[in-house]
Amino acid sequence: MPIAKASHYRYVFLMIEDRIWTAALVIIGDEILSGRTQDKNISQIAIWLNIQGIRLSEVRVVPDVESAIVEAVNALRVRHDYLFTTGGIGPTHDDITVDAIAVALGVPVIVHPRAEQILRDYYETRGGLTEARLRMARVPQGAELIENRVSGAPGIRFDNIFIMAGVPSITAMMLDGLSGKIEGGRPMMSESLGCWVAESEVADLLRRTEQAHDGCQIGSYPFFRAGKVGANFVIRSTDHEQLSKCVVQLTEGLAELGYASEPGGISPTG
Amino acid sequence: MPIAKASHYRYVFLMIEDRIWTAALVIIGDEILSGRTQDKNISQIAIWLNIQGIRLSEVRVVPDVESAIVEAVNALRVRHDYLFTTGGIGPTHDDITVDAIAVALGVPVIVHPRAEQILRDYYETRGGLTEARLRMARVPQGAELIENRVSGAPGIRFDNIFIMAGVPSITAMMLDGLSGKIEGGRPMMSESLGCWVAESEVADLLRRTEQAHDGCQIGSYPFFRAGKVGANFVIRSTDHEQLSKCVVQLTEGLAELGYASEPGGISPTG
Repeated sequence: MPIAKASHYRYVFLMIEDRIWTAALVIIGDEILSGRTQDKNISQIAIWLNIQGIRLSEVRVVPDVESAIVEAVNALRVRHDYLFTTGGIGPTHDDITVDAIAVALGVPVIVHPRAEQILRDYYETRGGLTEARLRMARVPQGAELIENRVSGAPGIRFDNIFIMAGVPSITAMMLDGLSGKIEGGRPMMSESLGCWVAESEVADLLRRTEQAHDGCQIGSYPFFRAGKVGANFVIRSTDHEQLSKCVVQLTEGLAELGYASEPGGISPTG
Repeated sequence: MPIAKASHYRYVFLMIEDRIWTAALVIIGDEILSGRTQDKNISQIAIWLNIQGIRLSEVRVVPDVESAIVEAVNALRVRHDYLFTTGGIGPTHDDITVDAIAVALGVPVIVHPRAEQILRDYYETRGGLTEARLRMARVPQGAELIENRVSGAPGIRFDNIFIMAGVPSITAMMLDGLSGKIEGGRPMMSESLGCWVAESEVADLLRRTEQAHDGCQIGSYPFFRAGKVGANFVIRSTDHEQLSKCVVQLTEGLAELGYASEPGGISPTG
């Protein structure tokens, strides 16, 4: 009986350990959809989430249109552990994220007293808290603040939704303030091998090597540099030992086919 | 009666002229969601679409997972004039886009004879057409090809769906081949004004100026450079005259408030 009990607990432990935490990201911004601004938030949020043990599983970029924001937020907040949004929380007329998310949640928008105080302090020596600036203290009722020291204006947390700034340097400060504060699982680890080979030459090797290592994924990312064909192979796993074995076997497999590989990968742009 | 008829035709003409053509983009790629690769396709496709008179209205980034691709493709292909996808059409095991889109469309995957011939010619002096390389000739039954001269492997068109490569330089070649070949409306034009001002100082002016110019949108994009606060105001319209008037009025309005503005905008990074 004690043995069965121990075994039972070990099983539960493994179940918890292997839980995959996921997040979605909604980028709210006409400037991204017009091509004027090249997005930087997907990669910085993806990398930050991975360190927290959370996998970015889906991203949507939507225009500054209430119905589009409402639809994306309601679709994604229920099927991921966390939903992040960026953009549309400034003081101008095109900043409608808070109102749209309040509509999605079915709650009113209120002025958050602590946010108002933060803004009042911040703007005390910067021309005062105008009506436009007070807009940045508005939150869906029931929300908490995510403070940021760059611009005063806080981000907003409501349940599993994190409403962040769109300017990448401010987004980064808000992420920094959240580090270690939200629950995740085991981070996904990855190693890269770069190789001057057409990926089609080694497609079978990649497939076989991935299949031979449980829980490992091998991605193949071809590039063309100075008239030469190359590829980076990215091996990903939450299990360090499996990851190392997979990298060794892929390195050996490439060598057997006559291709040297470079640990860490090759820069596609030289 | 002739007058009524003329008027009727003019009305129809205006309806056609004002039709807004929209596109969605599905980016298929674990490398974007992991943060390893910073996306470049959203902005290059958005800019190209705008030249064709088509507005990029929604983007989704999904992992290399069949069900995720199927869901995004089926959701977006029916509600936009065009759907573009990037990524996952290479020769390796993680390239599942064609299979997933065929599932979404309910058609089988076949080897396209012309694609096979293109690949056979391309690889004649490059080691021959292996089984892995032949994967790149597979298309959903009924599809046409989008040729590209960089890597041989063609993109694929099926109805309003355009299946493109994920490597930005190859995507660019495929877009180039499509230029002027798909129907669109009037391109969205835009002008930028840069200003060393906190956007919250001029929020009312922005709102009033936008409201006074039908069909114009003003976006406000703040930045922080070398300890100073600035913003770029982007005015967008399909009507050149309205756009020009709106830019003039915003420039004058900023000047009245004591702010000089720079036509063309200010680089946020110096």
